[in-house]
Amino acid sequence: MNIEDLPIRDDLRGRTPYGAPQLDVAVRLNTNENSYPLPDDVVEAIGKAVQAELRDLNRYPDRDAIALRTALADYLGHGLSVAEVWAANGSNEVQQQLLQAFGGPGRTALGFGPSYSMHPLLALGTGTGWIGALRDPDFGLDPGKAVAALDEHDPDLVFLCSPNNPTGTALDPEVITAVLERARGVVVVDEAYTEFARAGTPSALTLVPEHPRLIVTRTMSKAFGFAGGRLGYLAAHAAVVDAVQLVRLPYHLSSLTQAAARAAVAQRDALLATVEAIKVQRDRIVSTLRERGFRVADSDANFVLFEVGGDQRVAWQKLLDRGVLIRDVGLPGWLRVTAGTPAETDAFLEALR
Amino acid sequence: MNIEDLPIRDDLRGRTPYGAPQLDVAVRLNTNENSYPLPDDVVEAIGKAVQAELRDLNRYPDRDAIALRTALADYLGHGLSVAEVWAANGSNEVQQQLLQAFGGPGRTALGFGPSYSMHPLLALGTGTGWIGALRDPDFGLDPGKAVAALDEHDPDLVFLCSPNNPTGTALDPEVITAVLERARGVVVVDEAYTEFARAGTPSALTLVPEHPRLIVTRTMSKAFGFAGGRLGYLAAHAAVVDAVQLVRLPYHLSSLTQAAARAAVAQRDALLATVEAIKVQRDRIVSTLRERGFRVADSDANFVLFEVGGDQRVAWQKLLDRGVLIRDVGLPGWLRVTAGTPAETDAFLEALR
Repeated sequence: MNIEDLPIRDDLRGRTPYGAPQLDVAVRLNTNENSYPLPDDVVEAIGKAVQAELRDLNRYPDRDAIALRTALADYLGHGLSVAEVWAANGSNEVQQQLLQAFGGPGRTALGFGPSYSMHPLLALGTGTGWIGALRDPDFGLDPGKAVAALDEHDPDLVFLCSPNNPTGTALDPEVITAVLERARGVVVVDEAYTEFARAGTPSALTLVPEHPRLIVTRTMSKAFGFAGGRLGYLAAHAAVVDAVQLVRLPYHLSSLTQAAARAAVAQRDALLATVEAIKVQRDRIVSTLRERGFRVADSDANFVLFEVGGDQRVAWQKLLDRGVLIRDVGLPGWLRVTAGTPAETDAFLEALR
Repeated sequence: MNIEDLPIRDDLRGRTPYGAPQLDVAVRLNTNENSYPLPDDVVEAIGKAVQAELRDLNRYPDRDAIALRTALADYLGHGLSVAEVWAANGSNEVQQQLLQAFGGPGRTALGFGPSYSMHPLLALGTGTGWIGALRDPDFGLDPGKAVAALDEHDPDLVFLCSPNNPTGTALDPEVITAVLERARGVVVVDEAYTEFARAGTPSALTLVPEHPRLIVTRTMSKAFGFAGGRLGYLAAHAAVVDAVQLVRLPYHLSSLTQAAARAAVAQRDALLATVEAIKVQRDRIVSTLRERGFRVADSDANFVLFEVGGDQRVAWQKLLDRGVLIRDVGLPGWLRVTAGTPAETDAFLEALR
């Protein structure tokens, strides 16, 4: 008796669960976590906030997470208010809710690969047809070609990812504008890594006021160093927030999650202080690899995609044998490495040599 | 610009978000929460467990929640192991995952109403067709009629709820056995309220070893008094657990949720100590209302369904005007009240008079 004997959906047969190997290795640079543990004062602030919730855990949490969404709106700025911000257990859940509200059976979502591999899996899980359009061979995305893909496929949702995972580069704002002007459905811009963008890179948040079908998703898993807390969010027109509430699970965000995330947002100066240090290591990886003759994608994120010159699976294993775990994203010839602490960068660069 | 101007799914148009009113009223007996706050020693234990996670929140949680699932298996007993237990953010998320794995587009789920109103909403949200079969007028469910509904509709999933919400009565085990023998697809038995069942009521867990398509879902929101912590789980054949992992969001359970729930399960003697006191109030509500001439459904849960004799919306409002919030579940002539503390029962019985 195994999974194949069960009446699972036909489109799930033969699949394996999504997820990078969780290995016990000294240097883990495979899931784009923030390598810096939380500072003591942040730990204390979150601990206090959580502690205050414990006695009343017998009661359901605020179903609308008003206090947390207010704090996130304040962090985002751009004149956003609580009605224009929504939060869930990771940006995966936010995006799943968007697919449930705007996609689902008989509808399609389109993305430009290589990009975040959960987007097509979330489409699969919600019964939404997935259309995998392609980026240029240099991982760029030309506005004309993006619009042509929309004209050809007429999707109900478009997923853009900026900075793009796993390639690292932010989109030219012209691409987002061109897609917004042509798209019939909603346009989701996944900005999970935006806090690491190079200077002068605008956020799609600037476009929200004029574009009611634009949805910008964010996460606290990366820059905030809050991956274990699981908190993703979106900013969009208030009507979009109304729409996701038709499909969200009631009480989806626990009292603990709401309190911990609120405290983390309040402590953002301390948490985001790691961003500049990580960008220094990111830029050091880019420049060192280029000096060594590797092809490297420009990075606005906390990771770097580089061409190994040969079978990336072999190179991945060799690095792992040297105690450095990075990510094979399934892109032939390329590997992705997270920018962490200076010591982790040292270990990676040394192992790669 | 409002929600109707957005390209939401047609089957969501005109709907409103699920959820009972969250009103600031002295006596809240509307969502079947456990009225007892957590004892100090439990608060301390959970606080310690959560505190230990905070420094490393920059890292993703254990994607498989092994330690928590092991603790839950131990709590359930029946020889269950970690491979046969799965957990998520509330039993709603567990059931959503089951619908994603075994239902979805082109498939159907069948339930017997009146029952938990989230079951059809979860089907809607996952693109699964919902077939609303009916219980008997006295809210019972006859094995022969249950099997006849299966023969007529041939669903991919069957939802049974025992003890049934909102009626309160546990199913006759013969019904579950009859459905299991006839069903082609999977059978989900929602046992959210099982810890409150009257003596001698067996759990469907006893049937798991012989029935690989049986899935028993549970929650920590009721007897455990952990509604704010959001933790639901299931017990089933290990292959079912493999199947839900194909659709679960990666890292769906935060480090905080896993730690807090583990600590709560470890403190189960203290937490479940409230169950007997709640059952006393439940039985007091049943007997008092019957003495007063009301029709009342037998209850194996922490709530009581009773016939108000007239328009239940009017009765609901009158009780609210007297500071007692109970639940109008949309069943003409009937209302549901949660069994809480003795003082809450006093307030309800007095207000009803």
